[in-house]
Amino acid sequence: MPPLDEFRKQIGDVPAHDDAATLKLKSLDFYWFSPILKRQLADCRGDIAVRPRNRDEVLAVAAAAARTRLPLTVRGGGTGNYGQAIPLSGGVVLDMGALDGVVSVSPGVGTFEAGATMLEIDKALAPQGWELRFHPSTRKQATIGGFVAGGAAGAGSCTWGQIADPGAVLAVEVATVEENPRVLRLEGPDVLKVLHAYGINGILLSVTVPLAPRHPWAERILAFPDLARAARFGQALTEAEGIAKKLVSVFDPRIPPKLGRLSAYVPEGRAAAIVMVSEPQAGALIDMAARFGGEVTFARSAEEADRVAFEGLGSPGPLYEYTWNHTTLHALKREPDITYLQVRFPPDGMLELVDTVAATFGDELLLHLEFQRRFGRVVCSALPLVRYTSDARLDEVIATLDAMGAAVSNPHTFVLDNAGWKRVDAPQPEFKRVADPHGLMNPGKLAGT
Amino acid sequence: MPPLDEFRKQIGDVPAHDDAATLKLKSLDFYWFSPILKRQLADCRGDIAVRPRNRDEVLAVAAAAARTRLPLTVRGGGTGNYGQAIPLSGGVVLDMGALDGVVSVSPGVGTFEAGATMLEIDKALAPQGWELRFHPSTRKQATIGGFVAGGAAGAGSCTWGQIADPGAVLAVEVATVEENPRVLRLEGPDVLKVLHAYGINGILLSVTVPLAPRHPWAERILAFPDLARAARFGQALTEAEGIAKKLVSVFDPRIPPKLGRLSAYVPEGRAAAIVMVSEPQAGALIDMAARFGGEVTFARSAEEADRVAFEGLGSPGPLYEYTWNHTTLHALKREPDITYLQVRFPPDGMLELVDTVAATFGDELLLHLEFQRRFGRVVCSALPLVRYTSDARLDEVIATLDAMGAAVSNPHTFVLDNAGWKRVDAPQPEFKRVADPHGLMNPGKLAGT
Repeated sequence: MPPLDEFRKQIGDVPAHDDAATLKLKSLDFYWFSPILKRQLADCRGDIAVRPRNRDEVLAVAAAAARTRLPLTVRGGGTGNYGQAIPLSGGVVLDMGALDGVVSVSPGVGTFEAGATMLEIDKALAPQGWELRFHPSTRKQATIGGFVAGGAAGAGSCTWGQIADPGAVLAVEVATVEENPRVLRLEGPDVLKVLHAYGINGILLSVTVPLAPRHPWAERILAFPDLARAARFGQALTEAEGIAKKLVSVFDPRIPPKLGRLSAYVPEGRAAAIVMVSEPQAGALIDMAARFGGEVTFARSAEEADRVAFEGLGSPGPLYEYTWNHTTLHALKREPDITYLQVRFPPDGMLELVDTVAATFGDELLLHLEFQRRFGRVVCSALPLVRYTSDARLDEVIATLDAMGAAVSNPHTFVLDNAGWKRVDAPQPEFKRVADPHGLMNPGKLAGT
Repeated sequence: MPPLDEFRKQIGDVPAHDDAATLKLKSLDFYWFSPILKRQLADCRGDIAVRPRNRDEVLAVAAAAARTRLPLTVRGGGTGNYGQAIPLSGGVVLDMGALDGVVSVSPGVGTFEAGATMLEIDKALAPQGWELRFHPSTRKQATIGGFVAGGAAGAGSCTWGQIADPGAVLAVEVATVEENPRVLRLEGPDVLKVLHAYGINGILLSVTVPLAPRHPWAERILAFPDLARAARFGQALTEAEGIAKKLVSVFDPRIPPKLGRLSAYVPEGRAAAIVMVSEPQAGALIDMAARFGGEVTFARSAEEADRVAFEGLGSPGPLYEYTWNHTTLHALKREPDITYLQVRFPPDGMLELVDTVAATFGDELLLHLEFQRRFGRVVCSALPLVRYTSDARLDEVIATLDAMGAAVSNPHTFVLDNAGWKRVDAPQPEFKRVADPHGLMNPGKLAGT
């Protein structure tokens, strides 16, 4: 019997589809933010997409894949930008979206099934006064398992750092891809064995994370005379321990006109900041912005912001949906030759380097900064909009930035190479041999597989 | 009629006492931590101590003091260490302790009468899931008005910075000391007009502060081979955004034996750390401590820690009562020749400077560090125990520390001098003319009055 038929037989009544439309939908992600990945990955498809309804069905899928030696690619919300969820060698696409339950919540900690979206988790937690510490701009689509496997930072990072930081994930449960799958529990630093491994180190079943007590997050847009002053405001605000906040995003004056509905709230030619701040403290923003020539141009109460986020009502949408890589999404929808980069600015001399970078590339590269706390310092990452002309020119821009001291994490490659693995200090290759002994999890994703 | 009799007549039935025992109790504070202040202030007494029961009675006291031109010294919990609450020129002592109500609480913000103790406020807030962002080690005695007028930092500062930081106090109400007292409301940066003014810029009636959502704070004591490694642990923990925490205190190995009941939990010759950490994250401490050769030697759950703090039951007492200037208190009770200093270490090269200071003074100065966040960086302040021999030697120690780059705020002076006023960027002298036009508020406290 062909392996695919055997696989079908073994998984019994686990929901499965293999029509072209479903396979396209379940095989791709937001890889098309990159013109390079777009060329490379557009035709990748799984041969069958399964959506198990519970843990036993996940284990049945894992067992069947191991027995038939079919490639297996795990998928959360499909919001990755580097093809994290794209099957490079066909086979089985495992959609975890039906495992979306809240397993348990107690003060300061929650356990969630890997397929739960971060928005649904926050909706469930809100009445109890808790929330996830951070979420990507794709809060509505992204699953917590996907965020652990392929994400990094987002709204909340200006206070809580990143998902790979010590303490940010307390435990995970992982199913191995073996003939008789096991469920392994990893705690503390062992979590790093699967973190940012793009889902090729076992199947994440559940995630236990510390929760943040929930502030009433009000939304604000502010306008500034120029990027330099907006950036200095972003820095000052993120440094201000006394002001509770969840999001500090800063935009070059040429970006807001590309942001659809948001453009109405930023006067032409002005740099902008998007901020989520604890409502009783919103007044402090006014004074702080004034120091940098800025003013508030849009204000939405925490109650209204929750309604917009939780019920999908109101316009504009949640302001975080204009930040992080949603900025790129909005611009790209309007100007198809736009792409982006990921740039980390070092904390020392950071804003001077931002100024220099901003002055170097003219209209080719427009800075969009996300302020964060990392390891006790305030830093900003940039997700600049880049006018794409050729692969060679993009490489040149990356090399120029690197030479200036702004470290680029190249988002235009789908291979989780050695550089990627070295991001976390953990025995990921060793754990891959445990969790995926047959090397079935998205072969081709890891360099050399 | 003598002014004091006239004052008595004018205040009507506001509770008042003038017996020697009460006047001693209500005129002094913890000034005796300093052998120098002890000599200078021991005999200072008010002539009458009043304890108004409501705002109208406070205003009656202010009016009567203004009309009779009697000096007026405002008092909260009397926990200051520089004689903040000690009347230097006699007159009226105004005990605010009976104005101790919670005025209002809504998500993220609370307004409290100035005389409410920080412990009672936290007890009232706990069922609603909120708490004060910080409190001094004297949480049980200190009032929120006193903390704003004469405090700076405490438990919570490792996350939230200090009380003078932007956003840390949203508003205050202040009564003027005039024949017809007015109640002024100061908001935002205007709050700095009374902040750290030692109560001589009007009578604080209420304080509005942002609240912190309440984590389940577990308590831990950890032991380390030496101070250098304990300090590096303190730094690493405070830098770890991913670990929610409220207190990170570090002690030279020679200090724990001086800390009474706490000494049982630190093996002899080991440096120590006291930590309050969000309970679900306590496991991360173990890994982090191990990196610095440390281990947990005492653990108390958040539930138990709350019981100890809120109900006064259990031993040892709340661990925060062994930190900040409570460390000095415990040591001083056992060794009367001990005093202390307040030292700020700059963030760059901080731990190397800590090492150098620790190596410089032998047994004369034992470092006790409190890790904090300030303006986006992790810093530590030291409240070192100092073996006092003479004023001249103490001056020498201060000069040596200053020369090494460790800035000393001299706690052995009761005068709020120009240096003190310059701490905050606000028109305090101008506001004093508004709030206290007759210069009646503790004359002698401000240099030149």
